[in-house]
Formats: sequence, C-alpha cells, structure tokens
Amino acid sequence: MKNFTYYNPVKLVFGKGTIAQLPTLIPQNARILMTYGQGSIKRNGVYEQVIRALRGYSIEEFSGIEPNPRYETLMKAVEVCRTTNIDFLLAVGGGSVLDGTKFIAAAVHYTTGDPWDFLSKGLKPRSALPLGCVLTLPATGSEMNIYAVISRDSTKEKYGFGSPLLYPQFSILDPETTFTLPPRQTANGIVDAFVHVMEQYMTYPIGALTQDHLAEAIILSLIEDGPKALSEPTNYTVRANIMWSATMALNGLIGCGVPQDWTTHAIGHELTAFYGLDHGQTLAIVMPAVWKHQKRAKEEKLALFARRVWQYDGSNAADVAIQRTEEFFRSLGVNTRLHEYGCDDRYFDEIVQRFELRNERLGEHQSIGANEVKEILELCK
Amino acid sequence: MKNFTYYNPVKLVFGKGTIAQLPTLIPQNARILMTYGQGSIKRNGVYEQVIRALRGYSIEEFSGIEPNPRYETLMKAVEVCRTTNIDFLLAVGGGSVLDGTKFIAAAVHYTTGDPWDFLSKGLKPRSALPLGCVLTLPATGSEMNIYAVISRDSTKEKYGFGSPLLYPQFSILDPETTFTLPPRQTANGIVDAFVHVMEQYMTYPIGALTQDHLAEAIILSLIEDGPKALSEPTNYTVRANIMWSATMALNGLIGCGVPQDWTTHAIGHELTAFYGLDHGQTLAIVMPAVWKHQKRAKEEKLALFARRVWQYDGSNAADVAIQRTEEFFRSLGVNTRLHEYGCDDRYFDEIVQRFELRNERLGEHQSIGANEVKEILELCK
Repeated sequence: MKNFTYYNPVKLVFGKGTIAQLPTLIPQNARILMTYGQGSIKRNGVYEQVIRALRGYSIEEFSGIEPNPRYETLMKAVEVCRTTNIDFLLAVGGGSVLDGTKFIAAAVHYTTGDPWDFLSKGLKPRSALPLGCVLTLPATGSEMNIYAVISRDSTKEKYGFGSPLLYPQFSILDPETTFTLPPRQTANGIVDAFVHVMEQYMTYPIGALTQDHLAEAIILSLIEDGPKALSEPTNYTVRANIMWSATMALNGLIGCGVPQDWTTHAIGHELTAFYGLDHGQTLAIVMPAVWKHQKRAKEEKLALFARRVWQYDGSNAADVAIQRTEEFFRSLGVNTRLHEYGCDDRYFDEIVQRFELRNERLGEHQSIGANEVKEILELCK
Repeated sequence: MKNFTYYNPVKLVFGKGTIAQLPTLIPQNARILMTYGQGSIKRNGVYEQVIRALRGYSIEEFSGIEPNPRYETLMKAVEVCRTTNIDFLLAVGGGSVLDGTKFIAAAVHYTTGDPWDFLSKGLKPRSALPLGCVLTLPATGSEMNIYAVISRDSTKEKYGFGSPLLYPQFSILDPETTFTLPPRQTANGIVDAFVHVMEQYMTYPIGALTQDHLAEAIILSLIEDGPKALSEPTNYTVRANIMWSATMALNGLIGCGVPQDWTTHAIGHELTAFYGLDHGQTLAIVMPAVWKHQKRAKEEKLALFARRVWQYDGSNAADVAIQRTEEFFRSLGVNTRLHEYGCDDRYFDEIVQRFELRNERLGEHQSIGANEVKEILELCK
C-alpha cells in the first residue's frame, strides 16, 4: 500500500426530510447566495423546502447554472457575490451546480487575476467562501470532495480543479429529491459513480485488500440497485442506496494508498467539450475503450473484477469483464459507442492535438500519451 | 435506510515513516503531554522517532497507562496537565492509551465535579484539550472516532463515553510500528476489529446494500490477512491491510443508517471488569454466544454472512456462520469459551445484577435484558 493522508471534514446529512435541518447548519447571520440550475428544483418541491427551511435568512438567488457548468455563467455569479457581500454559498442541485458553486467560492476571493487560472494553470485558491449543498442528483461525488469540473464555452475547454478549501461544510442528501429525476440523468449518474470507482480500482494489484473489497462493495450495490432506480423510481431504499454509493465512490476513501488511472475522465471531458455529450455518456463510451487498449496492463485487476463482481472465473476473464460492464451500461439505457450518439471522428485530431500540446501522460504507468489517446478514440467509434 | 449524519474530521496519516510528519500536525508553540503505556514504544523505536520528530517542542511525558486504562491512573495525568499548563495531548500507543488520553482531554476542563460522571452518568464534556495520536496497535478504531472506554479499579466498572470534542485532530498510522507486537495483541486486535464490524452488521436486513457490502469488505480483508499478520509479522502489506481495516471498522461509515447491536461489547466489558480478560478475548467468547441466543432474530443476516463471507449457501446457514466465525477466532489463537481461560461462572450473578440495576435493554430490538444476559453468559462457559 502506498502512503496516504485521508482528511474529509464534510458533514453529511442523509435521509428523508433532512432539508429542514438547514438552519442548524448555516450561521443565522449569513448572507446566502443560493445557486441552482435550470429550474427542476422548482418543479419537484426542493426549492420550496429550502426557502421554507431558511425563513428569516438573507438570501440572494442565482439560477441557470447549466450541466457542465460554464465559466461564462459562473463569473456572473461571482459578480453578484461581490456586489451583495455574500458570505455563504448554498448549492441546490446536482454535481454541476455544486461544481459551479465551488468555482464561485474560489473565484470571489481571487481579484488579482482571471479565476480561469485555477483550471488552466493549476493555480491553487488561497481562500474561498464557505459553502454547503442540498444534493438532488447522485453522480459526481462532489458533495463530499474538494473537486470541481468547469467548462469554458468560448474555447471548448473542460478542466477540473480542487482545493481543501472547497469541501462543502455540509451536504444534505435526501433520496426523495431524486424520485423525479429524468431516467437519462439517473442512468448517467449511476455510470458516473461506477466509473469513479473504477478509476481508483482498475489498475494493477498492490495487495491493498481492503480498498479492493470496498471498491467492489460499491460496484455490487450499483449493479444490484442501478436498474431498479430506473424501473422503480420512487423506491426509497433503492434511491438511498444509489445516493450513498455515489457519494462513497468519490469521497477519497477507496482511493487511499492505491494507484489510480483517470484516463477515462480526461478523454471523456474532451468528448463533452467537442461533441456536447453528457458526462455519463462519455464515460460509458471511453472506459471500455481504455480497458481494451490497456488490457495487458490491467489484466490482473480485470480478472479479479470478473471473478468478484461478475462471478466469472473462466478463461478470457478480462474480455468478459469488459463485455459485462458494457452490458451493464447498456441495460441502463446508456450506449457505449460514439456512432450510437450520431457522432463521427471529426474532432479526433483536435482532441489528440490537445493531449500533445499539454504533453500529458495518463494512466497508472503514465504510458498513455497523445498517440495512445488516438488509438483509444478509434476504439470509441 | 435510516436517516443519519456522518461527520469525521480526523486527519489520517498512513504509511511508512509518517511519524516524521508530526511537526506539520502540531502547532509549534504547543505544550505537549505525550502519553504512553508500559514502555513497549521504548523497545520498538517509536518513542525515539516521536522525540526526534518533535525536537524543539515543549514536551512532558506521562507513561504507565495500562490496558483497559484506569480512571485512577488517568486522574494523575489530569493533575499533570493542570499544573504544567498542557495544551496538546499526544497519545502514542494502542487503543488503551488513546482512550485514556481522550478521557484526560475531557477531564482537564471539567473542574466542577468528578470526571467519572462522563462514564457513569452520561455527562457530556463541554470542552476538551486537542489531541493527536501515533497508533501502534490496530484494534479499537479509537484513532478515527469519538469514543473511549475507561475502567475503574476500585468499583470493577468499565464503561464507554464519547463526544465530537474527542476526535483526534490527526492520527498517524505507520504499519511498521506493529511489526513487533506480541502475537496475542495482534490477534486480539483482529478480533476487536472483526467484532466492531459485526456489531454494526449482524442485526436484520433493511436493504442497505452498500453498508452490508462495505462491512463484508472489511471482514474479508481481516479473514484473508489476519492469520498472515501472525505468521508473517513483518510483512508490510499485511500489517497495512490489518491497520487500515481496523480503522475502517469503527470510523462510523459502515454503521451509517443501519440498526446496530452492541450487546457483545456490553457483556464483554463486564467480563474484563470481573475476570480481567483481554478485551479481544471477551469479544471472542461473547459474540458467538449472543449469536446463538439471538439466532432467530439474526437469522437472515447470519445466512447472508454465511453466503457472502464464508461462501456457504446450504442449510443451517446460521449455525455454519457461527461455527466458521468461532473457527476463525481460534485460528488466531483466541479461545472462545470462558473455561478455556480458566474462568468459571462465579461472577455471573454480579454481572446480571448490574444489567438489572441499570435496567438496560440491549440488542437491535431492545429484546435483551438481564435475564437474557444470564442466558448468554451460560452459553459463554
């Protein structure tokens, strides 16, 4: 096992009716900016629950944060914070709203340059506004980690950044808020959580038994209850399992002390930037392709995965693991090939060029460069 | 799934050579009381590593904290803290040293009464000294939780208490510090971690898939690497797995939103108080007895456990689960019957009387009272 430090001070408040606990979590004299997306929280009653819970608080609202939250939009919220002296951010929505709000939190205090530097130059925030969250879409794990992924429309860029300053002070997770999610978002969220686990698991064995078993534990839950979340959308137990699994998938625990491989996310972000595909869709396309390309390097873990998760102990275990995983994504209604989304290879060159320019090496062995990205993209077609 | 709040701000620093990070974790101007046990840290080099890392700090020492840390001893440390204006406690040792140090942390600030009230009357501390820990024995999970168990010699009492004020600010876990543990302590620690998982698992199913799988994940690691920790005491990977598993067993995660049953610990504490048995030994004795007594109530989870952990899918699954668990404890050299430790039933009446007096109801259904404790004790003989 590698050395690691684990620190995660997010207070996670989970369960039915927990939005009512907001006043115990935000200081009474806070000047709150409530951020949200494109209005689904007004249709499903979450907006009203939040407003009711926060009666007596000073609240500004900023709506319209889009999926793959855009720098251009978020900078308007930064302006609102500065002009109205906001001192607490409350994100109400899914991972995009929360990620966008993390960016706002860091950007408000950064007045000496362009906050896009956090994304493009790896600049680290020195301070940030405190934030909390009411999560309505299990997927990104952002509710219990320091990361955010932001897109820039004008340049077709999508990058991640992170800082311990961006841990939400609290995250409220009420599975009932997910009952009315469109099936596509539910399915994308399950794929996202699944792939988060795999990016921390599907590398090579280093004898970290507990982390391996923990990762498999989350995957087994997603496999068992994922399809039910689609067929029984108001089954509380199922929605609760999916919500908790998605949080556990990326709160840092299963990645402690093990090699990781975030190739799928890196390439997936480019597919979203160029083709406008949903994040979950890009992951369902890219991960099987990465595994096929890296089959030799990942052989032992693919076989372990086949045995422990897919109950397959025969020959060609790596192929079977890949095939079963694709079948699982497809059973959720998420296709696993670019052409199935009507996308061809027209942006491949530009994408490969980006990896060339950034001179990035991906993968647990840093063995994936621009050439390999090109080969992986070919497998995505 | 039940509603829950999860909050755990302990900074866990894990791995080889991590004791050297102490100066990054304790404020430079702190006046430290370093607490430890009966001197093993001087023999295995841990003492020297700590002192070297903390060169330049103001350090007092308090040694002699015993297994099942005693109120009488700890109150002497409280006196030291008060007279020397200690403002940071550093526990160096196993769960007993750490639990004792948590008691000291709470007791120093409680000057208007007897700190034993925290244990006997459920009084909650209002403030506490900050503390950190260098763990040398994986077992109690105390390094990443708010709990402490303290014994009082004069009255043969052993009780637990807890407060969020007692989270260690950090815990350093270097698996190499466990290489020289006596086999009995290694084995006891594995049993302790195993039983912690089971107290949060072996109740009745409520569809909390993730928690069930996570609990099984930790157990599978303990079963696979537990015996190796005894046969290959200097195998780093094995020691690391055991250390991380023991922490994960009681840091609150697997207990989120599920029913729990701490009967084994409650009865086990009495066996330690009256017979002087090691904590791990009492758990290995009591848990199988509790399961036998509660076989009907726990039938479904016992069968799940038999299937997923012991790969047994036949008839009498509950009996097989109990039998395999006992065999596992015995494979570690930890006996599972009182008579094997030379103990008879001479204190049974006194123990039962205590449960009568406290009028406690134990178990996930509060179905275990003094009469049932007596029946369980008979099964421990």
